[in-house]
Amino acid sequence: MNISPTNSAQNSLFQKMEQVRRRQGKVRDTHITLAHGSGGKAMHDLIDDIFVSNFDNPILSQLEDQASFDLANLIQQGDRLAFTTDSYVVDPLFFPGSDIGELAINGTVNDLAVSGAKPLYLTCSVILEEGLPVEILRRVAASMNAAAKNAGIKIVTGDTKVVHRGAADKLFINTAGIGVIPRGVNISAHNIKPGDAVIINGEIGNHGTAILIARGELALETNIESDCQPLHSLVETILHICPQVHAMRDATRGGLATVLNEFALSSNVGIRLFEESIPVREEVNGVCEILGLDPLYLANEGKLVVLVSKENADNVLSTMKSHPAGKDACIIGEVISSPPGIVLLKTVFGAERIVDMLVGDQLPRIC
Amino acid sequence: MNISPTNSAQNSLFQKMEQVRRRQGKVRDTHITLAHGSGGKAMHDLIDDIFVSNFDNPILSQLEDQASFDLANLIQQGDRLAFTTDSYVVDPLFFPGSDIGELAINGTVNDLAVSGAKPLYLTCSVILEEGLPVEILRRVAASMNAAAKNAGIKIVTGDTKVVHRGAADKLFINTAGIGVIPRGVNISAHNIKPGDAVIINGEIGNHGTAILIARGELALETNIESDCQPLHSLVETILHICPQVHAMRDATRGGLATVLNEFALSSNVGIRLFEESIPVREEVNGVCEILGLDPLYLANEGKLVVLVSKENADNVLSTMKSHPAGKDACIIGEVISSPPGIVLLKTVFGAERIVDMLVGDQLPRIC
Repeated sequence: MNISPTNSAQNSLFQKMEQVRRRQGKVRDTHITLAHGSGGKAMHDLIDDIFVSNFDNPILSQLEDQASFDLANLIQQGDRLAFTTDSYVVDPLFFPGSDIGELAINGTVNDLAVSGAKPLYLTCSVILEEGLPVEILRRVAASMNAAAKNAGIKIVTGDTKVVHRGAADKLFINTAGIGVIPRGVNISAHNIKPGDAVIINGEIGNHGTAILIARGELALETNIESDCQPLHSLVETILHICPQVHAMRDATRGGLATVLNEFALSSNVGIRLFEESIPVREEVNGVCEILGLDPLYLANEGKLVVLVSKENADNVLSTMKSHPAGKDACIIGEVISSPPGIVLLKTVFGAERIVDMLVGDQLPRIC
Repeated sequence: MNISPTNSAQNSLFQKMEQVRRRQGKVRDTHITLAHGSGGKAMHDLIDDIFVSNFDNPILSQLEDQASFDLANLIQQGDRLAFTTDSYVVDPLFFPGSDIGELAINGTVNDLAVSGAKPLYLTCSVILEEGLPVEILRRVAASMNAAAKNAGIKIVTGDTKVVHRGAADKLFINTAGIGVIPRGVNISAHNIKPGDAVIINGEIGNHGTAILIARGELALETNIESDCQPLHSLVETILHICPQVHAMRDATRGGLATVLNEFALSSNVGIRLFEESIPVREEVNGVCEILGLDPLYLANEGKLVVLVSKENADNVLSTMKSHPAGKDACIIGEVISSPPGIVLLKTVFGAERIVDMLVGDQLPRIC
């Protein structure tokens, strides 16, 4: 057969083919198949239907292998670029208060925000298990889209892989993000000084407990929901009134205890926590007592730990309280010069104990 | 018990604790456990021992939740930032000519390079299956490190997750990357014009065939190795003599056919390939004939497709041939105005057939 473009019957065939191929791709399958990861037609349709239509923005819809932005625009917003990544493997995919999609956006937004950066652009890379209902993926993508809008960021590029049934558990997401750090902001775990106040924006342990309950392995019912939320707006508000914040971090996997241990080691200082000041819901304490867990190590997904000089502490605290994401903010501890690298907890009974870095594993696949 | 820092016995205890915790973390386990993904001590040791020591650079070793760079340095190198991501799920992890670690670096380096960008910084996020031998992870990290050095990029931040045995297949890697696009370079799948020449830098199908053979499902032995290589230097050389290149892309998953279909649709042009000009190894053709595969759809990991005006074609071709990554470069096709959106292949017998976008799946987990 010799197909020549001059033949009119053939031209008509070509036109029909082109129309079919240009049509906005639609996924007709009800479940993910290996073809959706092949790089071919099925994958293009999946990307069009689930991701591009959901995350609709001009950079993504170019469908180049990379997104690109003018550096001149970035440099107007600050003098440094922040760059971060996280993979999300939380089980179950949907849980009280949130889901893996929202988590994958907020988690990376928060990793940028705690450097003081304004989060701007995120990637979205998914690993799908063959057999995953397409409807699940659609719900997760819609949730990512809503979270992206809420956080004011754009999803600009992505990747889709499919593995055989049993080679992954349903759905894993990776997001990487970039943001711009404003001039004059210098937030680092290495900046902490004795005398600094330790401030947190609310209750700890809600996310970890919500996941634990959602797994259904405990015959418990509670109202506890994940605290998953973006923190960039709260951070911006704090930096507006106090650009001299020493350190900030969101207390996620490993909990408050892990973040404070990282701080103590990085700045070579001690940290003393006041147990009675740390906000923990009664239900969270109850679940912890039953299971022998410690709320200090439970994961959070919307908790900001702020280290600021004693002089600025009250100002920062009242500013945080005026923000919806910080209304339950409180001072929970102080930085001391000795013992360096150690976190101490002054218990409600007046005794002091060491809060070490988490040894072993409390709760796998929490984020 | 009341631990007071004034007690000298306690102070000595604190000092010992601090020494232990400051010691460069070493992984003593032989296999990955859930604790390595907990956010606690085991994870910090794993990151120190496997990643930070391997990828040693001052940005990563800060161990903040995000890396940061001066925008002023970036803007000296160009006017646009390129940003990309890919997850890597290739099976097996090690195969003739390369492995998942090298692939995860070169794949993302190449996605940046084909925009004309100089690749600069990469993230590294791993999802590990409980029970993975630590030695495997160490080999993969060493391979990533060697590839990063070879490509002149830095791995600046990362993430580690561990899932239960059976919830992932050994090891998945995600890398995201940023680079800077030099002023005056404007490479896009939308820029292609009728008359353009289609150039490729060498043999197609080697990576796909190497993986297929490595899986051991065929009783075949060949010398075929993956073509996994970074393409940034070849791209830089091409742009140096011809900044007006219209489009470039690396032909990975979905093969040469997929890239050319994407090009044809994006620029609304036709593309005619000359079968006799397309370099395919005899062994690759042999494997394809046995299995009913088509080399045009087989994955590559070091193949650059360049679309350039007819006037610049010879100059670009000879420049590519002078570069080690382009020594087998050749012109394999031409861009035609009609039929738009369609790729045609002029076969060795003189007939023409349509090379459609891949339908279904040739080979899962190829990258």
